[in-house]
Amino acid sequence: MSSKSDIPLLSEKHSGIPLNLLEKAQRAKALIYETRTKETKTRERLPAIPQGIDKSTFIKALDELGDQLGTDNVEVNEKPLVDGWYMEHPNTHDMMPILDDEELVASAVVYPSSTEEVQRIVLWANKYSIPIFPISMGRNLGYGGAAPRVRGSVVIDLGKRMNKILDINPNDYTCLVEPGVSFYALYEAIQAKGYDHMWIDTPDLGGGSVIGNTLDRGVGYTPYGDHWACHSGLEVVLPTGEVIRTGMGALPGNNTWQTFPYGFGPYSDGIFSQSNFGIVTKMGMTLMPNPGGYESFMYAFQKEGDLEALIEIIRPLRIGNILENVAQVRHAIQTLAVKGLPRTKYFSGDGPIPEEIVREQLRKMPIGDHTWLYYGMSYGPPHIRKYKLDIIDQEFKKIPGARKIDPSTLPEDEYFWSRDRIAAGVPDLVELLWVNWVPNGAHVAFSPVSPIRGADAMKLFNLGKRRHDEFGIDFLPAFCVGLREMHLIVEIVYDKNDPVKRKAANDCLREMIDDAAKEGYGEYRTHLVLMDQVAGTYSWNDGALMKFNERLKDALDPNGILAPGKSGIWPARYRGRGWEMGKSSGGRSEGNGVTPSKNTKL
Amino acid sequence: MSSKSDIPLLSEKHSGIPLNLLEKAQRAKALIYETRTKETKTRERLPAIPQGIDKSTFIKALDELGDQLGTDNVEVNEKPLVDGWYMEHPNTHDMMPILDDEELVASAVVYPSSTEEVQRIVLWANKYSIPIFPISMGRNLGYGGAAPRVRGSVVIDLGKRMNKILDINPNDYTCLVEPGVSFYALYEAIQAKGYDHMWIDTPDLGGGSVIGNTLDRGVGYTPYGDHWACHSGLEVVLPTGEVIRTGMGALPGNNTWQTFPYGFGPYSDGIFSQSNFGIVTKMGMTLMPNPGGYESFMYAFQKEGDLEALIEIIRPLRIGNILENVAQVRHAIQTLAVKGLPRTKYFSGDGPIPEEIVREQLRKMPIGDHTWLYYGMSYGPPHIRKYKLDIIDQEFKKIPGARKIDPSTLPEDEYFWSRDRIAAGVPDLVELLWVNWVPNGAHVAFSPVSPIRGADAMKLFNLGKRRHDEFGIDFLPAFCVGLREMHLIVEIVYDKNDPVKRKAANDCLREMIDDAAKEGYGEYRTHLVLMDQVAGTYSWNDGALMKFNERLKDALDPNGILAPGKSGIWPARYRGRGWEMGKSSGGRSEGNGVTPSKNTKL
Repeated sequence: MSSKSDIPLLSEKHSGIPLNLLEKAQRAKALIYETRTKETKTRERLPAIPQGIDKSTFIKALDELGDQLGTDNVEVNEKPLVDGWYMEHPNTHDMMPILDDEELVASAVVYPSSTEEVQRIVLWANKYSIPIFPISMGRNLGYGGAAPRVRGSVVIDLGKRMNKILDINPNDYTCLVEPGVSFYALYEAIQAKGYDHMWIDTPDLGGGSVIGNTLDRGVGYTPYGDHWACHSGLEVVLPTGEVIRTGMGALPGNNTWQTFPYGFGPYSDGIFSQSNFGIVTKMGMTLMPNPGGYESFMYAFQKEGDLEALIEIIRPLRIGNILENVAQVRHAIQTLAVKGLPRTKYFSGDGPIPEEIVREQLRKMPIGDHTWLYYGMSYGPPHIRKYKLDIIDQEFKKIPGARKIDPSTLPEDEYFWSRDRIAAGVPDLVELLWVNWVPNGAHVAFSPVSPIRGADAMKLFNLGKRRHDEFGIDFLPAFCVGLREMHLIVEIVYDKNDPVKRKAANDCLREMIDDAAKEGYGEYRTHLVLMDQVAGTYSWNDGALMKFNERLKDALDPNGILAPGKSGIWPARYRGRGWEMGKSSGGRSEGNGVTPSKNTKL
Repeated sequence: MSSKSDIPLLSEKHSGIPLNLLEKAQRAKALIYETRTKETKTRERLPAIPQGIDKSTFIKALDELGDQLGTDNVEVNEKPLVDGWYMEHPNTHDMMPILDDEELVASAVVYPSSTEEVQRIVLWANKYSIPIFPISMGRNLGYGGAAPRVRGSVVIDLGKRMNKILDINPNDYTCLVEPGVSFYALYEAIQAKGYDHMWIDTPDLGGGSVIGNTLDRGVGYTPYGDHWACHSGLEVVLPTGEVIRTGMGALPGNNTWQTFPYGFGPYSDGIFSQSNFGIVTKMGMTLMPNPGGYESFMYAFQKEGDLEALIEIIRPLRIGNILENVAQVRHAIQTLAVKGLPRTKYFSGDGPIPEEIVREQLRKMPIGDHTWLYYGMSYGPPHIRKYKLDIIDQEFKKIPGARKIDPSTLPEDEYFWSRDRIAAGVPDLVELLWVNWVPNGAHVAFSPVSPIRGADAMKLFNLGKRRHDEFGIDFLPAFCVGLREMHLIVEIVYDKNDPVKRKAANDCLREMIDDAAKEGYGEYRTHLVLMDQVAGTYSWNDGALMKFNERLKDALDPNGILAPGKSGIWPARYRGRGWEMGKSSGGRSEGNGVTPSKNTKL
């Protein structure tokens, strides 16, 4: 697959998905291409050499690796920083940095073409004690992108050459993919085969890797939204170079690797998610049966305080599967931001945009004035949908002023249609438009897990609002109800070229993480730079879980070469040396803890 | 909870479950009490002292433990072997042995009352290098019961005193339980609180531990049948004595331990299932929302070969959730066996009962002659059920001779009503009746995982039939379709007091396991005695997964004290010493590999 074809044009063959969905997605992609121009920045802090090795030895080691992989597949990272977004493969850094953008950069990027080559890279890293950091496609936007946790690591870009869909099984509704397979590519392949009866599940942005998203425990918006729960079977290269297959994959000649996840004995898949215990080179994924019909719906709620009653109404409906996909409640300001226009169009001041200005704009828009929008989809044949939609309507309208929005009144560039595509398993990119809210826009997420309770929603809303106001940042909250729990998702949109704005975003996040932990809320996922802090909040019984993780790390990665610091887990040779951000004093400023103190020798 | 109250009489308060269901379950329990009399057998091979420790040191060590736990809670296992079934707590051995029944016995049984006491036991075991084997309630019938894998281990009977339901949350539809909570107890507690809106999911036999069943990855028959997938959060005592809480449980003051399973960082729960890496002392479990109605149905199919077409029909219906719970296809002979009468009533010969005799009996029974029965349940309000049942009827009747059985024609002691209760989340015991098929009846399971394919079903059917015929055993197959995979479940029913019959069962199982592995089928779960062999079939890449498991074992349990040999995972000090049954030569006879060779020193 060429870098271009990572997001091929959607095919004409639409296989049961209404053509207008495809056309709209197509237009959405074109929009992204137009609005996100490629940025290039000359680098000043060159080169980033791994700690504990001198430059000439490092270059010699890279040459040795080049002999094995081919010199074209081992690149010293001396190039300018390119923000190619989804257009290219510029896996040199975090395209949405919250530290200086030369902070989390790779020393080199290598491109294996096979599991065996990944093994060779791992053995090479052990030989030279070089930190390596695997990425699938590097599109974990808002959580670190293509960047390694430790500056100067060698990034293993798995996706560039390991990008095959190894199997699509139309009987079992499963597939087997390599790290470079994006949600777009998987969707396209299924459409191309004419498999009308199978859907994929896609997250908000469809350009990322299926494996990468699943390993970071990302979610999508069909009933198969919990990607981790929907995978079946992994192939993993261990930090010492061995390859295992999990589940039924461990049985030679097996025929159920993608259909029965557990196998026999300990079920080890989980320890390879959000971790640095192995490199996943293949993954099985289940596909959703075409539900035989679907229908998006949207409700608007007037008052900020309506959130409390709405969440209480959502809980039993979601657990009872009347609400069948992630229940999303988005704040009105997002309706404005996701239009993709700069906020200066509405407000020229420096602090948060005043609520009255947002409302004034909303009144001009098709949906009209509101504070919260609910986006949902009902699945199945019409009479089955009607049963569920009638219950939903009756319940939601218990909130005074609740309005159901008629989709036929909405223009085709309305964000509703992007949600419609995503909830029908059609990859999309429109969500990215809101980074245009500020110049050089980037976003970073705060995503604490909470019970599905009105009181918790209000508490989290107020917690976030207070800190955003304190740091002068627009507050863009959404609540996503998975099944029995709710995530507040706050994306801070900031000017990534402005150190003051970056620092404000970083500081605001750090305060919110601590605030939330005090109330018993913990993040389900976080940006590389915040991992130590978040891991530190999971501290029950004197940090017993982290000590357990460290014991596993030391057993599986005795030389400490694989993704040091990922999820806050540091190998023995890094521990107690100032790498751990959460443990160092004053760890709130840029750069602290990301590079060790000058006296540290590795 | 007293041992008696493990299966309290079902309360009068029925909370929405039709009273006749309760009455029928009640009668089923009475039946079990009547038919399964308590057996007692004097022991000959006393005492079973752990390898590597002399008797006097062992007794001294037990005294030391008694000082900590109370002397009543540390029992040397010198008592007769009592088969109390569900009535008592005779956790001294496997009540359904496939080796001599004194083979897999504990040296002592200890009864902790708290997580802290479990920690103390673990530290004590490390001090003296004594193998310990935790059981929840010891009711893993057909897979080893209360027995340890290594003779002379100290069994930790967690369930006797740690039997509290710590929480039932009617808003989140979750509970938090200790190891001694049975499906009956959980069901009763929910009924007692009047929580009509929540169901539990129960396996075929409701008397076992919720935690024990889930950790062995057992299944039930409502839409929440995959117990492992439905749990959320563990508390685990590690083999070195530390306690961790997984998922959100690691966040102090958390409020989502039972609602969001993953937490942050590596998701480690899976490595504590079917393993010997830790002792689970608490587990969260989700509860199913009352679906607002339910309806059992049954179809009969005439010919043996109908299985092939039926499985092909089931696959898309099950994956598409038209068939909403485990799809069960049971062979006609089970209809006879589960009546609970001895097979001598129908046939006095020694080999397998002839098919014609089975058919002759079937013709006298309400369902009439058939070869396969399908048991299912549809959930939801009547019009929603009708939508699904109509599709099922149309599809199933594509098979010539397929008949839908009208439940109103069935007497109330018909097995159908037991399946009806179980599929509605009401614990039951009727399934156990079929052990009456032979004198001193016990059962042991063969349960390979296969794709949902007609051809695979026939292949497995013929494979099992051939080996059963070879060993002169009645073949009692059922096919259970989970979601994307199918298990053949064969229960061999044998006279546990007859060494020849035990050996035939054991030999038949071992041949079937090897036969199946050659075709790419692997067991999802197995009896203690077969674990080495089954683990040996998961041998991809030179046994890479087992080497990985051994590396974890050595890191987490450096002294090798916790459940040595469970799932085929032996600690370093046991490896290569003849313990591993699968690796020793001629490992098909009783006793081989279960005790090490005479020269082995531990």
